[in-house]
Amino acid sequence: MKAVVYKEPFKVVVENVDDPTLLHPNDVIVQVTSTCICGSDLHMYEGRTAAQPGIVFGHENMGTVVELGNAVTTLKQGDRVVMPFNVGCGFCKNCERGFTGFCLTVNPGFAGGAYGYVAMGPYPGGQAEYVRVPYADFNCLVLPAGTEHEADFALLADIFPTGYHGAYLAEVQPGESVAVFGAGPVGIMAAYSCIIRGATEVYSVDRVPERLEVARKIGAIPINFDQGDPVEQIIAMRDGEGVDKGIDAVGYQACGAQAAREIPNTVLSDLTRVVNATGILGIPGLYVPSDPGGVDENAKQGLLLMPFGKMFEKGLVLKTGQCNVKRYNRYLRDLIIAGKAKPSFVVSHEVPLSEAPMAYEKFDKRIDGYTKVILKPTQG
Amino acid sequence: MKAVVYKEPFKVVVENVDDPTLLHPNDVIVQVTSTCICGSDLHMYEGRTAAQPGIVFGHENMGTVVELGNAVTTLKQGDRVVMPFNVGCGFCKNCERGFTGFCLTVNPGFAGGAYGYVAMGPYPGGQAEYVRVPYADFNCLVLPAGTEHEADFALLADIFPTGYHGAYLAEVQPGESVAVFGAGPVGIMAAYSCIIRGATEVYSVDRVPERLEVARKIGAIPINFDQGDPVEQIIAMRDGEGVDKGIDAVGYQACGAQAAREIPNTVLSDLTRVVNATGILGIPGLYVPSDPGGVDENAKQGLLLMPFGKMFEKGLVLKTGQCNVKRYNRYLRDLIIAGKAKPSFVVSHEVPLSEAPMAYEKFDKRIDGYTKVILKPTQG
Amino acid sequence: MKAVVYKEPFKVVVENVDDPTLLHPNDVIVQVTSTCICGSDLHMYEGRTAAQPGIVFGHENMGTVVELGNAVTTLKQGDRVVMPFNVGCGFCKNCERGFTGFCLTVNPGFAGGAYGYVAMGPYPGGQAEYVRVPYADFNCLVLPAGTEHEADFALLADIFPTGYHGAYLAEVQPGESVAVFGAGPVGIMAAYSCIIRGATEVYSVDRVPERLEVARKIGAIPINFDQGDPVEQIIAMRDGEGVDKGIDAVGYQACGAQAAREIPNTVLSDLTRVVNATGILGIPGLYVPSDPGGVDENAKQGLLLMPFGKMFEKGLVLKTGQCNVKRYNRYLRDLIIAGKAKPSFVVSHEVPLSEAPMAYEKFDKRIDGYTKVILKPTQG
Amino acid sequence: MKAVVYKEPFKVVVENVDDPTLLHPNDVIVQVTSTCICGSDLHMYEGRTAAQPGIVFGHENMGTVVELGNAVTTLKQGDRVVMPFNVGCGFCKNCERGFTGFCLTVNPGFAGGAYGYVAMGPYPGGQAEYVRVPYADFNCLVLPAGTEHEADFALLADIFPTGYHGAYLAEVQPGESVAVFGAGPVGIMAAYSCIIRGATEVYSVDRVPERLEVARKIGAIPINFDQGDPVEQIIAMRDGEGVDKGIDAVGYQACGAQAAREIPNTVLSDLTRVVNATGILGIPGLYVPSDPGGVDENAKQGLLLMPFGKMFEKGLVLKTGQCNVKRYNRYLRDLIIAGKAKPSFVVSHEVPLSEAPMAYEKFDKRIDGYTKVILKPTQG
Repeated sequence: MKAVVYKEPFKVVVENVDDPTLLHPNDVIVQVTSTCICGSDLHMYEGRTAAQPGIVFGHENMGTVVELGNAVTTLKQGDRVVMPFNVGCGFCKNCERGFTGFCLTVNPGFAGGAYGYVAMGPYPGGQAEYVRVPYADFNCLVLPAGTEHEADFALLADIFPTGYHGAYLAEVQPGESVAVFGAGPVGIMAAYSCIIRGATEVYSVDRVPERLEVARKIGAIPINFDQGDPVEQIIAMRDGEGVDKGIDAVGYQACGAQAAREIPNTVLSDLTRVVNATGILGIPGLYVPSDPGGVDENAKQGLLLMPFGKMFEKGLVLKTGQCNVKRYNRYLRDLIIAGKAKPSFVVSHEVPLSEAPMAYEKFDKRIDGYTKVILKPTQG
Repeated sequence: MKAVVYKEPFKVVVENVDDPTLLHPNDVIVQVTSTCICGSDLHMYEGRTAAQPGIVFGHENMGTVVELGNAVTTLKQGDRVVMPFNVGCGFCKNCERGFTGFCLTVNPGFAGGAYGYVAMGPYPGGQAEYVRVPYADFNCLVLPAGTEHEADFALLADIFPTGYHGAYLAEVQPGESVAVFGAGPVGIMAAYSCIIRGATEVYSVDRVPERLEVARKIGAIPINFDQGDPVEQIIAMRDGEGVDKGIDAVGYQACGAQAAREIPNTVLSDLTRVVNATGILGIPGLYVPSDPGGVDENAKQGLLLMPFGKMFEKGLVLKTGQCNVKRYNRYLRDLIIAGKAKPSFVVSHEVPLSEAPMAYEKFDKRIDGYTKVILKPTQG
Repeated sequence: MKAVVYKEPFKVVVENVDDPTLLHPNDVIVQVTSTCICGSDLHMYEGRTAAQPGIVFGHENMGTVVELGNAVTTLKQGDRVVMPFNVGCGFCKNCERGFTGFCLTVNPGFAGGAYGYVAMGPYPGGQAEYVRVPYADFNCLVLPAGTEHEADFALLADIFPTGYHGAYLAEVQPGESVAVFGAGPVGIMAAYSCIIRGATEVYSVDRVPERLEVARKIGAIPINFDQGDPVEQIIAMRDGEGVDKGIDAVGYQACGAQAAREIPNTVLSDLTRVVNATGILGIPGLYVPSDPGGVDENAKQGLLLMPFGKMFEKGLVLKTGQCNVKRYNRYLRDLIIAGKAKPSFVVSHEVPLSEAPMAYEKFDKRIDGYTKVILKPTQG
Repeated sequence: MKAVVYKEPFKVVVENVDDPTLLHPNDVIVQVTSTCICGSDLHMYEGRTAAQPGIVFGHENMGTVVELGNAVTTLKQGDRVVMPFNVGCGFCKNCERGFTGFCLTVNPGFAGGAYGYVAMGPYPGGQAEYVRVPYADFNCLVLPAGTEHEADFALLADIFPTGYHGAYLAEVQPGESVAVFGAGPVGIMAAYSCIIRGATEVYSVDRVPERLEVARKIGAIPINFDQGDPVEQIIAMRDGEGVDKGIDAVGYQACGAQAAREIPNTVLSDLTRVVNATGILGIPGLYVPSDPGGVDENAKQGLLLMPFGKMFEKGLVLKTGQCNVKRYNRYLRDLIIAGKAKPSFVVSHEVPLSEAPMAYEKFDKRIDGYTKVILKPTQG
């Protein structure tokens, strides 16, 4: 089958690889109809991880069940399904408590597995015609038959739940104000999720005018940090007050104004300033324990200089970690079906799988409006 | 009246000051029967804060109501009461949600007030014969009449709730394992609280043999970090596993092995290593945004180098801040009355108020077994 | 001053009564600008309670602070405020945990107080030119100066929070389905609150076409129980499935189809059938322990025949009780200010205080569209 | 193999039945070493259910894995395991949220499955030499090898978690007072769990002196309702106050004083009286929607006359339903291993499987001290 294969930094190709087969009775094979390129794929693409050539990318996958292991109970051939980017077993100490992003079974020696990602276990990615799904009863979310909402549902694999995760971690409640740092796909999904949860003012902080315009359109208040300290801007708008909650949808590659340079702790520092005492910071933005491309020795080891004295004085709560997609995907699916959420507004392009190399390049360079791309393997 | 007055670094005296008077109709005056010296008093005593000469120390106060403002509703003369170290109003946005340690009313411009503490508002301390208590209906917890449990109840002002706060923040549940860093008075109260909440293994990490012996006596597992990496010791005891939860009862003056030097981030780093993925860190140990005596430029500004990449990878939750005493003191009082908790085992000395200067000196030097001192103003 | 005084069943008059005065240093006097008639006022109006002639009605009050006791801290003359219908002290065991509807101080011998209501303590109602507010720092919510949102803010005293309380008790989350029984003012506020909290399908069950039309307009799905078993209607719409959560906004005067007769347990029975196993029932609808007008001996004593075997089999949770308004009113106020909620769509009439007798009569008879009336004492 | 087979009301025999075989790749076969008789087995034994002759009883099973389906991942031959009485799949909407007692997969058309129980799915009981365990990775809790704590671990299948469930539902916290109705095996486990969770006063209400003596020994306060109204007894002991929380560990076969007759609603009525306003009732005691042996027409249909007006006035919360064993068994296991819980004090007899008929008879008649029996199939 055709698949997107990583070759070397800044180079992926679409080439033939072996078709996936059932390796375990609880597996299914899914024919992929939609598979997104994620910002975290770019970490590997840019050579900023230990990913080795030959890996098939793709952890945001949906499609149709075409083959089932004989232990699979509730799925059947032809089911339209979307899979969390996390691979979970469903029965370990973490999965049974809902922490499916930290499964202890699927990637021995580590808490958590994923498709098509370095160090996340033996699960080839789904930027391909087919993908193998382990513990399929647990990992497949069944969707209504047909083709409706395809792009919305595709986002249930990762970025809609991951954005929602930020709002959930921050315990955003109706009537609260929130500062969301980052208005890329995850950040915009976080702002959108805050609005779904009933937040009053949602401040969306970024420096890219197109992103800020999207934030404005969904009802958030855009804050351009190239135009001044975003904390001061927000506090000025609020008559001197801070906000109830904060979300970091940026992570370790945070930049200063004008993107002059990476300042890994800038978002956490700003959140500490702008969030009121007793507030909560939801942190879905990725931080890593090892970053060979880090700006200094500390950054390379995942060490951040944090205003912890101020955090303590304010009694802040910091909640971190990758999204446990299964905690949210069923409910977010139902919001889409009910017409109460339509996250696909964030999708900029849908292209055949064969155009993946071009899409990676443009997305990586943020040119031609490439902000969120869905690859369509069934379209070539 | 007599009171403990700060003069200069390493010098307090007991001298006459004006008696407190009712300044507001919701005030009461309490005749102090017990008032403890707190480890955080030593921060001021050592000149490591901006505290000015003349301040009366004492935020861990209990006694008898002797005079009442005319708006006070439920208290009456002769009531035996203990006051949280926090001063709260009871009706601001933070107090009404239970965050009484972050009151927005009593110390304008800051979230939180306390008695006898630098920058915590105009509330003279209770290391004195009398103390004024504002918003008395809210801030006084009524105790059974008499003298029973006096030392236990005195600890309800701060260290028993503050230790419990650590266990509460970490959401310690029956059947869980916990690593508690620090076995000083607050740390030992945190370990004790974990046991009250039904924890299985509670690892108590310190380097002072006497403290570790107390930990052992209450059923915790002592870990001496002078005898090797405490994380490795714990993990070895657990057949290679970490613990479910962690508590930092040390704070910013954390030391390395042999207490050779302050390493402000060492406890947070160790907790990140020893707590399992999906775990929670309860952090009652004090961190400050400004520490003139800090070991380096970052420490002086309350900036800590933290293993945030690893924290994120493990999906850890960090919960910080001073204790909201009122959230717990009523329940802890009832545990004492029912004979299910007897925290006074941590008290090393009870001395007349007049001996405060000696007690401060010995406690500061940790000599002659001075670990937790109660001053008794009614005894001279 | 002028006030609405209860004379006998089905008779209220507007007559002169003594002006309220400050009885306690924590009191304020509020000049009433808006005060609503509540469905629960009709219980007294109809003589279905032990209310004695002479009582001044009115527990949904807002206005302007005109006089302050000398212990009041944060309010000032001229502040525009709205008061919860509950009277709370702010410092008892229940208030301090947020259960301000069950205050142990303000109505000795009972848990909970209110204005202008039988057996709820010595607090004359606010359907008058002025009203006394005890513990004013605690019980007044300050609003933006001016006259904007007057009708929306007036609903913060009771029905918006009470409706929200139903959704809060039922723990309605984004993506969930809910059946709300009752589309009167509280029921419609409950449905509205479910939508604010992100519910997908909200089924609004009633038999009055005008109410069902309002439900439809706000995005709920109307279910007319005169047209068939509402449970079967909902389940048919859901392809055989029940709903995640349920809200009873009807209470003890529930009627069967065609309103042929009162069937006090019909709503709870229906909810037990329509809510899925593991679901939660939020029950803000009033049930009383004594109802002289009850349909039978059991009803007179507040005893209901409930399908408890089925409730247990499904593992249902029932959460009851009057609304703790202060838990929500600050946040709901901010939703109104931000333009994210506009509950005044439920108000049918605003009339001068002098027209109260007519308004009571029409509201009681549900004629001329009287469904929710705001009295305006400053307009005569 | 030998198994306990139900023949007719009041008659079980031990006879040969077919050995269980692997029916699904996720199954394992467990050789049973301990299997308890449960009070709910007596409902079937007494003919008070629709159970048909031929059913093999036994839902409280532990033993050794002897055969594994080829999809089982984490178990291996020889593992010592205990199984929740619930059968769950691990991946349905209810299991994934922790409601494993309400699995939607294993017993189609109903929420929840169990071993050896009428209407709970095709899962023969474990009062036999062997038992088949479906979804074995999910349903088996691995225990330390060996024979230590055998009786304690056996209780992890049902009554220890079920008692704990009562305390969990009631959200019992350190410092709270609780009334536990019923001091049979589940009730005593509930009282024990309250103590583990840090309750102060735990009132254990029953009429059997031996049970009350056990309650006293574990630190609860015995209340004999044959000696007077239990509510009045408790309130008198508390100087006129009620309790914070309540647990119903009795269920639908509740009796009045002297056990003169069944009064199905007596426990719920008493709890409503004795629990303070804002309290929570945890209800693990079984109520059924159909009881052919009920005392009247309502009881036969699972309808109870409840003091719902008073419940509402007090703002009580009622939480019902069978225990989701997997939510607790891992933690309770660890309490046993750590020596912090030893629930086997409740076991009265351990007998070979062959003596099951005698044990059923004596347990049913409550003679010779038969209160909790463990059958030992490996001992004959």
